[in-house]
Amino acid sequence: MNIESMVIETAKQARKASIEMAECATPQKDDALIRIAGLLEAESAYIKAENLKDLERAREMGLAAPMIDRLTLTDAVIRQMADGLREIKEMKDPVGTMTQTWIRPNGLNVSRMRIPLGVIGIIYESRPNVTVDAAGLCFKAGNAVILRGGSEALESNRALAEIISRALADAGLPEKAVQVISVRDREAVNYLLSQEEYIDLIIPRGGEGLIRFVVENSKIPVLKHYKGVCHVYVDKGADLSMAEEICFNSKVQRPGVCNSMETMLVHTAEAAEFLPQMAERFKAAGVKIKGCPETLNHVPFAEPAVEADWPEEYLDLILAVKIVDDMDEAIRHIAAYGSAHTESIVTADYQRARDFLRRVDSSVVLVNASTRFNDGGQLGLGAEMGISTSKLHAFGPMGVDELTTTKFVVLGNGQIRT
Amino acid sequence: MNIESMVIETAKQARKASIEMAECATPQKDDALIRIAGLLEAESAYIKAENLKDLERAREMGLAAPMIDRLTLTDAVIRQMADGLREIKEMKDPVGTMTQTWIRPNGLNVSRMRIPLGVIGIIYESRPNVTVDAAGLCFKAGNAVILRGGSEALESNRALAEIISRALADAGLPEKAVQVISVRDREAVNYLLSQEEYIDLIIPRGGEGLIRFVVENSKIPVLKHYKGVCHVYVDKGADLSMAEEICFNSKVQRPGVCNSMETMLVHTAEAAEFLPQMAERFKAAGVKIKGCPETLNHVPFAEPAVEADWPEEYLDLILAVKIVDDMDEAIRHIAAYGSAHTESIVTADYQRARDFLRRVDSSVVLVNASTRFNDGGQLGLGAEMGISTSKLHAFGPMGVDELTTTKFVVLGNGQIRT
Repeated sequence: MNIESMVIETAKQARKASIEMAECATPQKDDALIRIAGLLEAESAYIKAENLKDLERAREMGLAAPMIDRLTLTDAVIRQMADGLREIKEMKDPVGTMTQTWIRPNGLNVSRMRIPLGVIGIIYESRPNVTVDAAGLCFKAGNAVILRGGSEALESNRALAEIISRALADAGLPEKAVQVISVRDREAVNYLLSQEEYIDLIIPRGGEGLIRFVVENSKIPVLKHYKGVCHVYVDKGADLSMAEEICFNSKVQRPGVCNSMETMLVHTAEAAEFLPQMAERFKAAGVKIKGCPETLNHVPFAEPAVEADWPEEYLDLILAVKIVDDMDEAIRHIAAYGSAHTESIVTADYQRARDFLRRVDSSVVLVNASTRFNDGGQLGLGAEMGISTSKLHAFGPMGVDELTTTKFVVLGNGQIRT
Repeated sequence: MNIESMVIETAKQARKASIEMAECATPQKDDALIRIAGLLEAESAYIKAENLKDLERAREMGLAAPMIDRLTLTDAVIRQMADGLREIKEMKDPVGTMTQTWIRPNGLNVSRMRIPLGVIGIIYESRPNVTVDAAGLCFKAGNAVILRGGSEALESNRALAEIISRALADAGLPEKAVQVISVRDREAVNYLLSQEEYIDLIIPRGGEGLIRFVVENSKIPVLKHYKGVCHVYVDKGADLSMAEEICFNSKVQRPGVCNSMETMLVHTAEAAEFLPQMAERFKAAGVKIKGCPETLNHVPFAEPAVEADWPEEYLDLILAVKIVDDMDEAIRHIAAYGSAHTESIVTADYQRARDFLRRVDSSVVLVNASTRFNDGGQLGLGAEMGISTSKLHAFGPMGVDELTTTKFVVLGNGQIRT
């Protein structure tokens, strides 16, 4: 069978499995999640052996050490994956719940019922744990899933999917509800992105190059996240010790992730009092500061920022700092250079808090809290499938509800249109 | 300026206008809708004169009479457009409303706030009234809109958009919140579909060819509707006089629209009693019946249905009829041949009503009501932007809420992540 036929066959099987998955009751899906978790732990020796094949190949090909680290499946990583599934089991099943209901003048009772999306394709790089996390969330929402991991993790992903399939079959669910596209050829991705008849959604997870490739080539809707250029704005009259804690946490707590602060905006009235002490604290934590001309007056050790710094996602201990005349300037800066990801205001002013929340066009907008809270777990959605920075269907962290849609359900007693 | 630069400039202007639109309060948007309605009526002579240019060109080019009919703007059509805007004015403004809210253990108050999508591109054929209806709905939800109508309606659409822009400016809203791409070249559409940086959503309205073209070429998310192959299933034990009324209404009330019934499925136990009388009534109304072999036993004047009849959207006084052994067979038939649009069951059985609603994977599923209720106005959403048969973002009729998305809004008092 050639690659195109193989991909089409996979997509057809997934569609078929998705119909069975959609009709599964919650206890059956939960039972499957527990069985998958147990089987992953029971088969850890097998998983590690298959993972070793990928690791050997990666070393031969001279893959960088951090990449090899992310590729490695240890007992601890396998236990984490299993525990992740047990957490997903505890989440609320959205399928079949009614989100709204109303009565029409003619007596029709109209509701919107949550239903699975159907078949979800996930295209990702490196970390094989995505195989298990993504499959678990998709199942909880009653979907079938097709996985296309990086070619460097091919054997690991195949082994994980095989174990998941086995556990699904044990639980009486369709084993084809999870399938891996396990050929190394890139063209397999193109074929996958053309199966709009069978696949409802594509979620790419990885670097910007991968995501742009998927967006440009997909005939299927895509939920994506390009980058996080997140801002904290320290307002005039803000509690400056609170501002310091929030800015420090937003930048330093985990600088390599998308919801960390990249640019700090400070109202000019607070700059002299706030900036020197804040900058010293950043300096002590190893944060390099790139400042606007006025910032340099307050922070002598800062480097001058250039235009390219404002839209930059450093993902590192580097921070751009700009002093602004008022909140309007801060909001204009965010609109011009931000990525619609996460912005926070530190303020004591009611009206500006309200206006910032309303006017800033980002997936998560906060008042007096760290940008690091843009995360499904932190916001109370449970496990997440990443953060969407485009607006259609989902904007912000995507939990299990975002892997469903709603249909209209109408109860009548003989109504016809006149 | 070449076409590509012109389209990019239009998209940039729309993005800019969308930021102003998003911040507009409800009374200002409502005032604009009323002003547009008034100006359309006041300028009806001008609109008809511009429309005449399109009509003359259409006659020269030999356009078919029904097409010319749809293209013609009379005083009555202009009044309808104006009244449509007055109805949209009465709808609830979704922007700024909170759809959910909860508290996290650390005291963070998390909500989801409805916000406009941003810039919506609408690509449509023929009817110039779409220009006004679509713009009105997009404005109500705080969006800017770019319109690309059929080249046969170019002068009409340009005139309508010009009037809308003037009324927007009178109301203090950005006049670039509505723009028409008014070059005849097809390549303008391709350029439009590539402006993912500035445009958030594309809605194509027209024939299947147009929609497929848009889906295949768009880098921007698309909300679409291919076709409506709608079914009514008459269950064992159904109230047969209710079934007759519902089936007749579903097929005959307006056969040329997407929510009319195309295939009637009848439980074998009811066929002998139900079909002969039902078929006579259809025959009297001019409906041609194409039946499965068993149907032919009950309806001597039916033609035999062929495989190609089951997925067919007749949009005409033609009906396919199939007798099924049970509801499972009906659901399998719908899954195999339906278009995920609208399906109805006529039944007296509680459990089967419940199962049909749950298991049928269509945008609107009804019990004991006509398929003709799949319509934004009929279901209580008010004016609509068409019916989506794909699942992402919107599934079913798209009202003003579907022209928005939600962002997360988080209120803290100094929370940081530990």
